[in-house]
Amino acid sequence: MKTLLMLAAAAAATPAPKAALAPSEIVAAAPKGDWVAIAASDLLVMDLASGKRVVIQLMPPPFSQGWVGNIRKLAAAKWWDGTSINRVQDNYVVQWGDATEKKALPADLLTVLQNQYVFPADQRIMRILSDKQRIVTRVVATRPARINETRPIRMSDPYSAVGGHLIGWPIATGDGGIWPVHCYGMVGVGRDMPPDTGTGAELYTVIGHAPRHLDRNIALVGRVISGIENLSSLPRGTGPLGFYEKPEQRVTIMSIRIGSEIKDLPRFEYLSTESASFAAYADARANRRDPFFIVPAGGADICNIPVPVRVAK
Amino acid sequence: MKTLLMLAAAAAATPAPKAALAPSEIVAAAPKGDWVAIAASDLLVMDLASGKRVVIQLMPPPFSQGWVGNIRKLAAAKWWDGTSINRVQDNYVVQWGDATEKKALPADLLTVLQNQYVFPADQRIMRILSDKQRIVTRVVATRPARINETRPIRMSDPYSAVGGHLIGWPIATGDGGIWPVHCYGMVGVGRDMPPDTGTGAELYTVIGHAPRHLDRNIALVGRVISGIENLSSLPRGTGPLGFYEKPEQRVTIMSIRIGSEIKDLPRFEYLSTESASFAAYADARANRRDPFFIVPAGGADICNIPVPVRVAK
Repeated sequence: MKTLLMLAAAAAATPAPKAALAPSEIVAAAPKGDWVAIAASDLLVMDLASGKRVVIQLMPPPFSQGWVGNIRKLAAAKWWDGTSINRVQDNYVVQWGDATEKKALPADLLTVLQNQYVFPADQRIMRILSDKQRIVTRVVATRPARINETRPIRMSDPYSAVGGHLIGWPIATGDGGIWPVHCYGMVGVGRDMPPDTGTGAELYTVIGHAPRHLDRNIALVGRVISGIENLSSLPRGTGPLGFYEKPEQRVTIMSIRIGSEIKDLPRFEYLSTESASFAAYADARANRRDPFFIVPAGGADICNIPVPVRVAK
Repeated sequence: MKTLLMLAAAAAATPAPKAALAPSEIVAAAPKGDWVAIAASDLLVMDLASGKRVVIQLMPPPFSQGWVGNIRKLAAAKWWDGTSINRVQDNYVVQWGDATEKKALPADLLTVLQNQYVFPADQRIMRILSDKQRIVTRVVATRPARINETRPIRMSDPYSAVGGHLIGWPIATGDGGIWPVHCYGMVGVGRDMPPDTGTGAELYTVIGHAPRHLDRNIALVGRVISGIENLSSLPRGTGPLGFYEKPEQRVTIMSIRIGSEIKDLPRFEYLSTESASFAAYADARANRRDPFFIVPAGGADICNIPVPVRVAK
């Protein structure tokens, strides 16, 4: 209690020449060069019978490329057209695919092994992480401090040795490997009991608190970058695990296509997670200094620092 | 990678006399004595014009009692009747109250100070925490290990010194104080810029990843224990911060009453966070050993261990 009162007193005594920027303001001020274009060929566009659209960015190498390759084949085969959203479980996932579980799959899909849930932290990745650490250290050293921030920012992660961001994605590190993280909006591959790993035909996205216990147990293949509200606001299913109990409750999928097949699709870009802008944004997420806040948290978990994505200007 | 392969090999080599229980199965098997009845007088019942109902459990002492007292007065005055849900921001909050911001408040509401966001960890609380630690240690020592679990469970929290559960609620500890945590479904008090702390007339609930940066910055007064899907599945507002842009988009609140005023309300109970059942449940959430999982996480964050609540049998 005493420390809190002291912090409040320090804040009152410090002259504030101008209000500190909110994380969204730091993102808005990021230079053009800190944004990375997302190729249309790396997007998956889902159009629903309701007329609503959901845009998914597929994961880049080295992550989950066996499943991503399958998803490209399924989209090319128009396999999902006429399938449906079948499951909406509150604070968990929205899931889609073939409700009948009888539709024949393309013959050339890969069977991906369980060891593909985690990837080796090779030299290229270690170099990116090291370069990034230098940027973070520099940004934190020069950050505008509204109050006496004597403690380093906590980024401790109960699910891994280190949680952070890498090449635009939420990534955890540990046991000599790296793996993608189940944050809100991430897209994963439904599967049966192990050693099954799923093909990619059955997909889900997270619509609640990050279900991190799924990390390293299920493949992550992308994230929703536009239209998540068209999934997260659907009526919850009342059957076990949130499956819809009646066929007429399912939401029909008109089509799923790779973005380069779609006319007039906006161009999307994400804020480079290796940029100084991202380091300042993450720092501000961990220690809010904009006027609404009175006690900065002192830390943040990886899923509470979502990677900014926008339509390119 | 190597460690993962070894874990998988160990799992295959270990004879499995029976499958380990899933967290939900541990909860279902908890003895009656591990459940704590929630008094109807500690519930807030919100009935929407749609006919849907949302039930909120109010926070117990020592937490946030100034605001909880105001909320009891507002309910007694039928102040919310005819107000509305005005804001639905994806992956953040649903907020309700008087959209006109002109409705007169009861005259006897307290103005609560900012120092009430955090509470001293007094002797009674320290004793509860210490008793609980003994139970956790015993449960973890005797847990069924499907695989070689040599590491202690990680419960590290980037937002506090210790995150855990206390008297049925998600609570963080640090700086000599304790405070409630913004998990999914928690209910908080909207406010203006500090030093305003809000009255309790404007409320919100979390419908996304835990916005822990709000901890210690806004009062938490309860949690939704039934009907959260009637809020989380509402259409997202398209105005700034997810406010509905047109009055007709708002969802009218028919009434909000204290539970003891409601006829035929089910009796609710929660799993004591100081019970051996809860310790086993939390352990199983951190290290899933049920057959679907191949790699136990080794840890969990506080909001990924929701306190089980059910209708009493």
